Amino acid sequence: MKATSEILALLESRNKTGLKEYLADCMPEEIADLLNHLDEDSLLMVFKAIDRELAFASYELLDINFQIALLDLLPNKLVTLIINDMSPDKRTALFQELSNEMLNKHLKLLTINERSVALHLLGYPENSIGRLMTPDYIAVKADWTVTDVLNYIRKYGENSETLDVIYIIDERGKLVDDIKVREILLAEPNTHLKEIINGRYTFLSVLDDEEVAIHAFNKNNRAALPVIDKSGLLLGIVTMDDVLRLSKEEYTEDIQKLGGVEALEEPYMDVPIPTMIRKRGLVLVILFVGELLTATAMAHFEDEIARAVVLALFVPLIVSSGGNSGSQAASLIIRALALGEITIKDWFKVLRRELISGFGLGLLLSLIGFARVGIWNYFTHAYGPHWMGLAATVSFSLLGVVLWGVIMGSMLPIILKKIGADPATSSAPFVATLVDVTGLVIYFTFALFFLKGTIL
Amino acid sequence: MKATSEILALLESRNKTGLKEYLADCMPEEIADLLNHLDEDSLLMVFKAIDRELAFASYELLDINFQIALLDLLPNKLVTLIINDMSPDKRTALFQELSNEMLNKHLKLLTINERSVALHLLGYPENSIGRLMTPDYIAVKADWTVTDVLNYIRKYGENSETLDVIYIIDERGKLVDDIKVREILLAEPNTHLKEIINGRYTFLSVLDDEEVAIHAFNKNNRAALPVIDKSGLLLGIVTMDDVLRLSKEEYTEDIQKLGGVEALEEPYMDVPIPTMIRKRGLVLVILFVGELLTATAMAHFEDEIARAVVLALFVPLIVSSGGNSGSQAASLIIRALALGEITIKDWFKVLRRELISGFGLGLLLSLIGFARVGIWNYFTHAYGPHWMGLAATVSFSLLGVVLWGVIMGSMLPIILKKIGADPATSSAPFVATLVDVTGLVIYFTFALFFLKGTIL
Repeated sequence: MKATSEILALLESRNKTGLKEYLADCMPEEIADLLNHLDEDSLLMVFKAIDRELAFASYELLDINFQIALLDLLPNKLVTLIINDMSPDKRTALFQELSNEMLNKHLKLLTINERSVALHLLGYPENSIGRLMTPDYIAVKADWTVTDVLNYIRKYGENSETLDVIYIIDERGKLVDDIKVREILLAEPNTHLKEIINGRYTFLSVLDDEEVAIHAFNKNNRAALPVIDKSGLLLGIVTMDDVLRLSKEEYTEDIQKLGGVEALEEPYMDVPIPTMIRKRGLVLVILFVGELLTATAMAHFEDEIARAVVLALFVPLIVSSGGNSGSQAASLIIRALALGEITIKDWFKVLRRELISGFGLGLLLSLIGFARVGIWNYFTHAYGPHWMGLAATVSFSLLGVVLWGVIMGSMLPIILKKIGADPATSSAPFVATLVDVTGLVIYFTFALFFLKGTIL
Repeated sequence: MKATSEILALLESRNKTGLKEYLADCMPEEIADLLNHLDEDSLLMVFKAIDRELAFASYELLDINFQIALLDLLPNKLVTLIINDMSPDKRTALFQELSNEMLNKHLKLLTINERSVALHLLGYPENSIGRLMTPDYIAVKADWTVTDVLNYIRKYGENSETLDVIYIIDERGKLVDDIKVREILLAEPNTHLKEIINGRYTFLSVLDDEEVAIHAFNKNNRAALPVIDKSGLLLGIVTMDDVLRLSKEEYTEDIQKLGGVEALEEPYMDVPIPTMIRKRGLVLVILFVGELLTATAMAHFEDEIARAVVLALFVPLIVSSGGNSGSQAASLIIRALALGEITIKDWFKVLRRELISGFGLGLLLSLIGFARVGIWNYFTHAYGPHWMGLAATVSFSLLGVVLWGVIMGSMLPIILKKIGADPATSSAPFVATLVDVTGLVIYFTFALFFLKGTIL
């Protein structure tokens, strides 16, 4: 929206005629974009200033939270028109987010026809492909000619969710093929469809998880994919836009999980603070309880620390290096798993790669660590005559924790996937916490080895 | 690909006839998916077993790394056919990844016509929309009838990258509108286009960054968007599939950056180990050098640790809690910025939200921390008569570092965005490292306050 300031001025001055004129030239996408950024008062003013068709189209494009808010804000009559006009897939996406009470109230506003469609779609399991589906598509027979199809589309295509793909079914309604409208446009008018179809098509199964749809669209460059039941009957189609919305949501959840937050499910600014604290608090407390073990581990080495306080100085350095290398490995593996670049079966290949990389990285850090202790001691004599033992302790521990970090960081996502959990749960903070306790044990073990009899 | 084992068996047994029969029934997407998982030998066998058209279509769908590898593997004659047949946008995506030598060699294989198209597109700046563009589209005039358009498409549409959207230009080639083919299919045959177009369209500017295209497609549910120059001339179109590929790549980079890795730019398994070490080592070393400051900070409090070794036990707990709360805040803010839910201008609102949430979260951890010290001491008397002072130190420090963590985690991405850097660079490991040193200072300051005169 280039002229946001202009529109804000019109809203500010409550200039209804100006608003009407301005908005008449906008595309539904622009209106939706504008609405997503307005307060309730202005939302209403915009909705009253645009014509019905534009209102319908923009409403469908709004974030679902805004759609829900508008159900309460808009006059009942307009809500009735909107939800009856909505495409069935968008309506399912909205309705499944409503409370039972709200859902019942709005189902009653639908015509008998629309209500039966809505109830049918809501009848599919949550997160199933059925919930993404719309029954509004064009299906034709293989013995029709191109002219037949074009005439049919002209007559009945208005309500079809997409006209980019046409479906071919047999007499019993079973899916025979899908065909891009492109092929129909390029064919001679008297060609029969059976001459141009090839019987190759990708389909979705109505009860499969919605993630299957995301993968199928990733692989197939199609505006829509057909949905069939076990017997091959064509039940509906899933369109690209809904799948894009879904994969954007999944992406957001992944990033939040990687940061160690439960998925927020609402825009950042809209999440009430108590919910925000709950969603972050649970993970933070789990991590904290895990991290309490570091205090226990440290207590185990209290005598050593008392004898050689200098050992304590390097504790944060050692544990954080393990955590960092673990985070790196985890984020690489989580993404590679999601992209299908690696599978669970590749665990050993991954482990081998990570051990080699980890050895290189650990060596790098251990050299810098050794240099840090040596050079510092050269100038300040801070570590006394036994500085070499300390330097060795730090170096070997760094190598050890980095190796341990990459092992945990790379194997944890694979193990989570293996047991059916979401690999993204093995977030940077989780891996770091897991590595911390072990890092301490590695460090003090090397200390005992290198410094026993000198400063220990 | 359901029958991967079947195809692998055919490849294994070098059964060419079986392979040919099997592959003839596959869709290009299935072939591409299969090719992406084969070794060089099998790649060649598959390419030889499929017909030309299928080979062309599958090649376009391959990962670019595989496309490059195949340029060397396939016979020169087939390469010539493939790159001449490739759609210009896909070809640019491939050619811009070639070395100069490879590029020159393959440009020479193009016909004069295709070469001039390829060179023209490669002439646009890297990462500009021009590089995503294809000149293969259907453009018509506003005074044409629907029948004119359908006839024109049938005659000249074969090479158009998409037939889902048609472009309307004036006599000088300036873009007047775009129209979904849907509208044309639904209109009566003798309707003139000017009766159904509305003059509302979204366009891309040829020199804009490709990120603009990603945003435009996110907002507009279109199969393609037109690209114009400064004077409004229609130069080409950008199609959805290329933008999807791009946003998938960006997503991968984001996740890798969040984990503290430079973007790999190649599938995990294909990255040579030395490159892997370099991409991870640089960040790891930067973090390590930052973390070295913790040793310096700790050295500053060496006397305090010597007097009260018990203080050292809680160091990992304190610093990691700051890091974890910082990671959470950073991942939420990075994603909210990317989605446009918040902008730089909202920094104060974000800060206020984070301070309130951070206070709640910090309080939670400080209560658990207090309980840990108290209960442990009740049973073991490990912390002696002054356990209350220690418990207070731990509690207040936890509140302090969590608050500091959320401030850094939330403000750093916003600051990075403000100075034009990528917010995702403020990864979990970076935030954790930044928070660690301050966390130590906070901890020992509270220790001096609560324990001076007792155990300190």
